[in-house]
Amino acid sequence: MPTPHLRVDLKRLKSLLEGVNRFGPDPRTGGFNRPGFSRDDTRCRSWFAARMREEGLTVWTDGALNVFGRFGPGDGPCIMAGSHLDTVVNGGAFDGALGACVALECVLAMKDAGIVPNTAVEVAATSEEEGRFGGMLGSQAITGQVTPEWIAAAVDAEGNRLSEVLKAHDLDAGTILAAARRPGSIAAFLELHIEQGPILEQEQVPIGIADRVSGVCYLELDFTGTANHSGTTPMHLRADAFAGLAELAHSIPQLIEAHGTDQSRITIGHVSLTPNQPHTIPGRAVFSVIIRDTSEEVMRTLRENMTLTAEASAKRHRLTMKAKERSWLSPVLLDPDVADLLEVLSERHGLPARRMPSGAGHDAQTMQAFCPSGLIFVPSRGGISHAPEEHSDWQDIEKGANLMLQALIELCRAKPG
Amino acid sequence: MPTPHLRVDLKRLKSLLEGVNRFGPDPRTGGFNRPGFSRDDTRCRSWFAARMREEGLTVWTDGALNVFGRFGPGDGPCIMAGSHLDTVVNGGAFDGALGACVALECVLAMKDAGIVPNTAVEVAATSEEEGRFGGMLGSQAITGQVTPEWIAAAVDAEGNRLSEVLKAHDLDAGTILAAARRPGSIAAFLELHIEQGPILEQEQVPIGIADRVSGVCYLELDFTGTANHSGTTPMHLRADAFAGLAELAHSIPQLIEAHGTDQSRITIGHVSLTPNQPHTIPGRAVFSVIIRDTSEEVMRTLRENMTLTAEASAKRHRLTMKAKERSWLSPVLLDPDVADLLEVLSERHGLPARRMPSGAGHDAQTMQAFCPSGLIFVPSRGGISHAPEEHSDWQDIEKGANLMLQALIELCRAKPG
Repeated sequence: MPTPHLRVDLKRLKSLLEGVNRFGPDPRTGGFNRPGFSRDDTRCRSWFAARMREEGLTVWTDGALNVFGRFGPGDGPCIMAGSHLDTVVNGGAFDGALGACVALECVLAMKDAGIVPNTAVEVAATSEEEGRFGGMLGSQAITGQVTPEWIAAAVDAEGNRLSEVLKAHDLDAGTILAAARRPGSIAAFLELHIEQGPILEQEQVPIGIADRVSGVCYLELDFTGTANHSGTTPMHLRADAFAGLAELAHSIPQLIEAHGTDQSRITIGHVSLTPNQPHTIPGRAVFSVIIRDTSEEVMRTLRENMTLTAEASAKRHRLTMKAKERSWLSPVLLDPDVADLLEVLSERHGLPARRMPSGAGHDAQTMQAFCPSGLIFVPSRGGISHAPEEHSDWQDIEKGANLMLQALIELCRAKPG
Repeated sequence: MPTPHLRVDLKRLKSLLEGVNRFGPDPRTGGFNRPGFSRDDTRCRSWFAARMREEGLTVWTDGALNVFGRFGPGDGPCIMAGSHLDTVVNGGAFDGALGACVALECVLAMKDAGIVPNTAVEVAATSEEEGRFGGMLGSQAITGQVTPEWIAAAVDAEGNRLSEVLKAHDLDAGTILAAARRPGSIAAFLELHIEQGPILEQEQVPIGIADRVSGVCYLELDFTGTANHSGTTPMHLRADAFAGLAELAHSIPQLIEAHGTDQSRITIGHVSLTPNQPHTIPGRAVFSVIIRDTSEEVMRTLRENMTLTAEASAKRHRLTMKAKERSWLSPVLLDPDVADLLEVLSERHGLPARRMPSGAGHDAQTMQAFCPSGLIFVPSRGGISHAPEEHSDWQDIEKGANLMLQALIELCRAKPG
């Protein structure tokens, strides 16, 4: 029997999140800096591990710096719940950290209520989810999706090699590979995360149940023309790399209208012009094109048409074009039974929720390759994330955390206390 | 009587240019680095002064580091000819330096031929024409167009203050102001320069006679939207600063068609996005818009319509816009009598030439405010300048230099030798 009146302790949850956010605050911006494997990230993990130990959980850190706290039977598969503790540079207070704290709070609420789980619940504080080294290292290590070759090649934006960074923590490719869990050892994974988008706020729904995660295609395009004097070169004799890029960027809405869906997103976020001088026609433009959709087929069609349009824009502006696909992450269908369970529980406990796709990537999509996984969203104010302004309302968080609690109780076949 | 068969010595001219370009070569790129007041710039000036002294000219350096070599009567007004010795960073072998060397070669050719000028000819190697500190310091100093306030405020792109840089050369605002020539002391100014554009090459004409110089309006626009996650933010809820910029940039050809002339140029050369990360919607775009035309009225109309279009693009993309006019240089009409003289002489001496506007700024336009000034162009291969690939054909240069020689002989009312 579930325990319908059990609730998370919002005060304790807030204090857990405050505890995490004592690490890496930037008083100038109000943001937080805990990039994966940074000093503040590892100190935060030690604090989180110690906090779980205080509460009597069985706590350990694996060879990829994932921290676990186990509640319930010492052997057998577990229900895992959690999220990551690392942040982007100048990130917000909620992204990742909230999910790890909610998982711990749920376990503490169960423990306080005297609940004895049949299946162990493990709180997971995963490592390096924000992609400092280009992946989701923590959950990829747990699920055995990391190769020694990838570890050897991985470098961050500042040119630091992952292998060197690991060495500083007495870790290496061997410890990362050894972090892989045995198949069947995790019966299900649940993650609560901020939405990082505006939809729940706009629709005034406090909970999102993600059933799919968009795929991501990262194209890098390189337009090369001729850097010439902006005064002496007539308009019709130019090979202006930025003019070609502007034409392409301007065509994105029509491209989505013709070939995309309401889940399609095409973003040009990074632009590097050469020489990037006011009085010189740009001779070169290197830029990113990020294509996302929840359908792999739509992604392929968008990629093809984006490339064709880029070629046409380049040609019209007398530019040569190089295209490179830097990465392709396929869309992921999260476990439909877990999503159904979350929906049933939200109805049963009067917690208004809507199903929705996730536009951002999360540990839950990595875990889905290993075990049935589910993802709960809470609204993001203004849709903002990865910034000091990131905020979620505590009343919404409480509702989302209570749904997580009910799901864990259900999945671990708890005996009521 | 002019001396129709007098010719410059191309071999000596080449060796003069080689002498100048021994200062600041970059063997990795093939380019040259003599930014105004840099060590290589000042060493080059000393060499050029010594070279003129060797030839028996009366040589001095003024308080703005302009170098002069006077040939002919020691008193009375002069005919001045020359150009600048400084380069942009990683500039070419010809820009500026060629014009200073051609002026000197013309004087040497006159001297060799025993020509005695009634009016002195002064070779000028001007300083800081490339605008390291935002102006054309050398010719502005000669013509008294510099103020102490401007000198106190001027800073280069690396944040070096002009006043500090001057101090290192034992110069200051006082020496700069003292460099101003007395009104009437320069009867005319002639400059030979590379075209820096593709027109002469395309039309296979070896000489251009510039009769106008385009004005330059430098607008800095700032679009601010919201930096959001590229996966979670639907296209219709974005405030994408780069999308707004792309729309504006894409409208430039129509804008010129509607409000410009064949002399109009609008260039977006510098773009700075924030945060400039592939996976984040650009929250801010700061960019330059350079508007040029030979008509001030057309420039005003283009500026007005560009600003209106920018406001509309910003509004459509939910962006706020700030616009700042960083500088406005009015178009300059060079002296029509000097241009006519150059045209007559080119016909008389079988030197094919065409009248044309100058799209780039030159010392001649600064000098025009002080004395009748003329500007001779020679073709630029591929229209390229300010780059290691900058090149002009020596056969064309010889023709241009011979036109300069004939003009100087004419203007200084030479007695044939």
